[in-house]
Amino acid sequence: MVRIGANRYGKAEVRVVHVGRGAGPDGSDLVRDWNVSTSLSGDLAATHLTGDNSRVLPTDTQKNTVYALAKKLGGIEPEAFAIELATHYTGSADAISRARIAIEEYPWTPISDGGHSFARSAQYARIVTVTDDRELGCSVVGGIGDLIVLNTTGSQFWGFARDEYTTLADAYDRMLATVVSARWRFRQRDADWGAAFQAATAALIEAFAQTESYSLQQTLYAMGTAILTAVPQICEVRLALPNKHHFLADLTPFGMANENEVYYAADRPYGLIEGTVLADDVPDAGIAWS
Amino acid sequence: MVRIGANRYGKAEVRVVHVGRGAGPDGSDLVRDWNVSTSLSGDLAATHLTGDNSRVLPTDTQKNTVYALAKKLGGIEPEAFAIELATHYTGSADAISRARIAIEEYPWTPISDGGHSFARSAQYARIVTVTDDRELGCSVVGGIGDLIVLNTTGSQFWGFARDEYTTLADAYDRMLATVVSARWRFRQRDADWGAAFQAATAALIEAFAQTESYSLQQTLYAMGTAILTAVPQICEVRLALPNKHHFLADLTPFGMANENEVYYAADRPYGLIEGTVLADDVPDAGIAWS
Amino acid sequence: MVRIGANRYGKAEVRVVHVGRGAGPDGSDLVRDWNVSTSLSGDLAATHLTGDNSRVLPTDTQKNTVYALAKKLGGIEPEAFAIELATHYTGSADAISRARIAIEEYPWTPISDGGHSFARSAQYARIVTVTDDRELGCSVVGGIGDLIVLNTTGSQFWGFARDEYTTLADAYDRMLATVVSARWRFRQRDADWGAAFQAATAALIEAFAQTESYSLQQTLYAMGTAILTAVPQICEVRLALPNKHHFLADLTPFGMANENEVYYAADRPYGLIEGTVLADDVPDAGIAWS
Amino acid sequence: MVRIGANRYGKAEVRVVHVGRGAGPDGSDLVRDWNVSTSLSGDLAATHLTGDNSRVLPTDTQKNTVYALAKKLGGIEPEAFAIELATHYTGSADAISRARIAIEEYPWTPISDGGHSFARSAQYARIVTVTDDRELGCSVVGGIGDLIVLNTTGSQFWGFARDEYTTLADAYDRMLATVVSARWRFRQRDADWGAAFQAATAALIEAFAQTESYSLQQTLYAMGTAILTAVPQICEVRLALPNKHHFLADLTPFGMANENEVYYAADRPYGLIEGTVLADDVPDAGIAWS
Repeated sequence: MVRIGANRYGKAEVRVVHVGRGAGPDGSDLVRDWNVSTSLSGDLAATHLTGDNSRVLPTDTQKNTVYALAKKLGGIEPEAFAIELATHYTGSADAISRARIAIEEYPWTPISDGGHSFARSAQYARIVTVTDDRELGCSVVGGIGDLIVLNTTGSQFWGFARDEYTTLADAYDRMLATVVSARWRFRQRDADWGAAFQAATAALIEAFAQTESYSLQQTLYAMGTAILTAVPQICEVRLALPNKHHFLADLTPFGMANENEVYYAADRPYGLIEGTVLADDVPDAGIAWS
Repeated sequence: MVRIGANRYGKAEVRVVHVGRGAGPDGSDLVRDWNVSTSLSGDLAATHLTGDNSRVLPTDTQKNTVYALAKKLGGIEPEAFAIELATHYTGSADAISRARIAIEEYPWTPISDGGHSFARSAQYARIVTVTDDRELGCSVVGGIGDLIVLNTTGSQFWGFARDEYTTLADAYDRMLATVVSARWRFRQRDADWGAAFQAATAALIEAFAQTESYSLQQTLYAMGTAILTAVPQICEVRLALPNKHHFLADLTPFGMANENEVYYAADRPYGLIEGTVLADDVPDAGIAWS
Repeated sequence: MVRIGANRYGKAEVRVVHVGRGAGPDGSDLVRDWNVSTSLSGDLAATHLTGDNSRVLPTDTQKNTVYALAKKLGGIEPEAFAIELATHYTGSADAISRARIAIEEYPWTPISDGGHSFARSAQYARIVTVTDDRELGCSVVGGIGDLIVLNTTGSQFWGFARDEYTTLADAYDRMLATVVSARWRFRQRDADWGAAFQAATAALIEAFAQTESYSLQQTLYAMGTAILTAVPQICEVRLALPNKHHFLADLTPFGMANENEVYYAADRPYGLIEGTVLADDVPDAGIAWS
Repeated sequence: MVRIGANRYGKAEVRVVHVGRGAGPDGSDLVRDWNVSTSLSGDLAATHLTGDNSRVLPTDTQKNTVYALAKKLGGIEPEAFAIELATHYTGSADAISRARIAIEEYPWTPISDGGHSFARSAQYARIVTVTDDRELGCSVVGGIGDLIVLNTTGSQFWGFARDEYTTLADAYDRMLATVVSARWRFRQRDADWGAAFQAATAALIEAFAQTESYSLQQTLYAMGTAILTAVPQICEVRLALPNKHHFLADLTPFGMANENEVYYAADRPYGLIEGTVLADDVPDAGIAWS
């Protein structure tokens, strides 16, 4: 005999772009470019067991709702939008006990004085995940992804454990590159979202640049600490840092020395460092990361 | 004040290909084509806090270990390899209390009588995740990914909940397509891995094809049930099924009827149905999904 | 002073799926899954210079036309469909002097007896490019892409040229893997398209498997020759073969020999071998490859 | 009977990163991050026909040469590097009559005062293709790719041709977005490459932003004209502009007006506009685009 366990359903990757006419700095347009994914959960046993869909709000409706709320709410911060969207679901339909909203925001930079022309700056994506549960309340997680950073010096790796399969040499001056994926949990469901994102991002970049690093783990911890220090509304930071290896090219067969000048950038495999940094008084995470 | 929380580190996407000379059916070669990711956890506070790496076995060593064990163990089943690799770590270094090994296996099909020529069948990837903890023991999760399937009929969706944003019409004969991602948890750390993979995959495909579907959720539940029924060593199945929408092209402006003949395949957004199916006597999952 | 040169415009990647109900073998459905790109050229100076669009048939119309013709023509061979679509344009609008239609067809394999359930076999994509010019006539190019093949032995590479930057050792038994991209030009605009595709593909696979290879160039030439021999309606074959390097893992630091058993599959860089094989009596290519 | 036609071979996607220590503005490091592809052609019939490789310089050697020349030449402009690398081949080996070098350069932006920390700005890739032929001389093509730009207004499309499959309505104020791929041919093999790239890029962006557009073709022509005007050393510009459609979301079912505020960004299909803009005195292209 079998039974249905945890489940959820929704619409993934609804691509919505909102233009706030004259709503940007100096009267320029404000572009909000989002990839929105929604998922709902609740008592959905019937549709799984018998195909009775009477409690299933279609994923097509969820798509429509994203566009309708984009109109109603205008070009607000993505965290605020996700909260409104999540609570719209948990507040409306009995069948839905929990809603999870994930948004990626892609930044656009003005390229002319007119205020109507923009270039997509793909240096990063701003990430938001809001989970609202009818009983357990609302959690807000912000973050950043796809931010590629590199230090040309100031990174070391030596004194590590060795076993029979270890061939790596000590490194006292290596290149360090990573693609930052960081997510931070807010203590409460309101904050100055834009300012918090800017401050957290600036703090992690500064920590990456300023840390004389003996391991990527150390850099990770410095980044998390910097974010928690810069934005007190944040209580927990989760980071995933791939080590995008840049190895020195071996030029000795050609009679050349390579004094930290010519590198090859490797694709795979790559190191992957994952870690969490917590405020000492961090509240329980509850449903935040589910 | 801040502190380090959960963390792990490792080498991701080690691409190893093992050729068993004459080890396949009828004396042909046997090709094992794997993408292996390893991650280790334990008492790693020092490297995070001070850059003291004395407890850090380099990710480069982890890469070497994959190749060395591929030689030692030969072309065994990926579940068996992952168990050996995980327990190698937890059994060797005091600093490592847990190892997690993930493998994707890509299938190759013989294309000639000689036994040395193969084509990559990209119909799916076989997926394995093994987690071994020094105290909590070993869990084995198998699965399949990237399996794209389609029913040209036998799928309906009607009688669903409606709200102010619902515009979807009832559908009594729609096309249903999905990219199956299924992972199944084994009750124990030994089984006939190859036979179990074949049986589980056959069962889920048969369930997809045979279910007269009133919702993709119902199909999901049927797939999970079929796997649990076919392979008693499996106690839990987790599925993620994107609804790869195929919409009828509207030909009425051209005076044509479209009687379920011409569709356009949409990219985004897509429905996403996620669910778990459990055996009634399912044991606690422990670290299996961490 | 400047002027407009060669130009064309169209709709790219129109995803159309046609289901022929009961039209397949043994009364099963026949699924044609296509990615169609169309582009038109002609006297289009006005729209470039002044924005006068009176000679511009919208790309949206081109999309509609794909769906409408899919209905009209049914699930015919992609080469035949591309010819019909191209000549539809060159035969209808004065402004259009040339049409180029490119189709990728993705194969689906039945997975049940009912004739309604299919799995996408991603082993390859069938490729078609048809160019029809009002004055220069119609050319048809077929082909295959994304076909990944591998020989575990029977490949050598030695006796090559050396210069001051050469470090490569002779190889007398290496693994050879490639992703076949082959395009073949037909002599005329009618043929048994399905049979020609099957015969050409079988010939190139057989040539890959059977050639004792001293270079990937030699294998390329063998593949092209095999296709020209197997399908006399084809007069020219263009191949692009990336050398998907599989290097032997160096296990000597661990006291192990690696006798062609454990390889690592490299991503980048990769060798890239491109070449053309021609029938001795090949007619001029004209617009075929433009 | 068959024969070998046009052919070439080489190493694709050699990933080389050069750090010029203190060589950047204000004494910061200068990072050159390149993806280099080389291909050689000449009398290579023997390797194709018999596997005699005595005239084949290995692709592995070509990879080595990229790294060795990166050391020898330092962090020079990519156009200059490609010229040096191409002429190295044509000047050295009798068997090689032509060399084609393609480089993508990825930009990095300083993120700290120290001069050692950078973020990858993925707003674009700088593109270079140099072809050097022993008899026909050297051609240099520069360009830019992956530059995503958007106008929130100032774009129209109406007055177009109509046929039986046309359903598109006139648009008097649409959003216009594209991913610019532009390549420009230089008249000669020396120029101030860095300044030329900056001037050409600035000119095309300005043209995109300032053109009141009646078609994407008109915008394309304005971009090409602007580049030719800004950089007299350039004689030909080839552009490929996908029309990244942003359609107005239909909010009327929800009783809402959508006054150019909420859009959905479509993936496929997309319009694709390709065109060439030439200086009146453009010299023959020769091998530039081969």
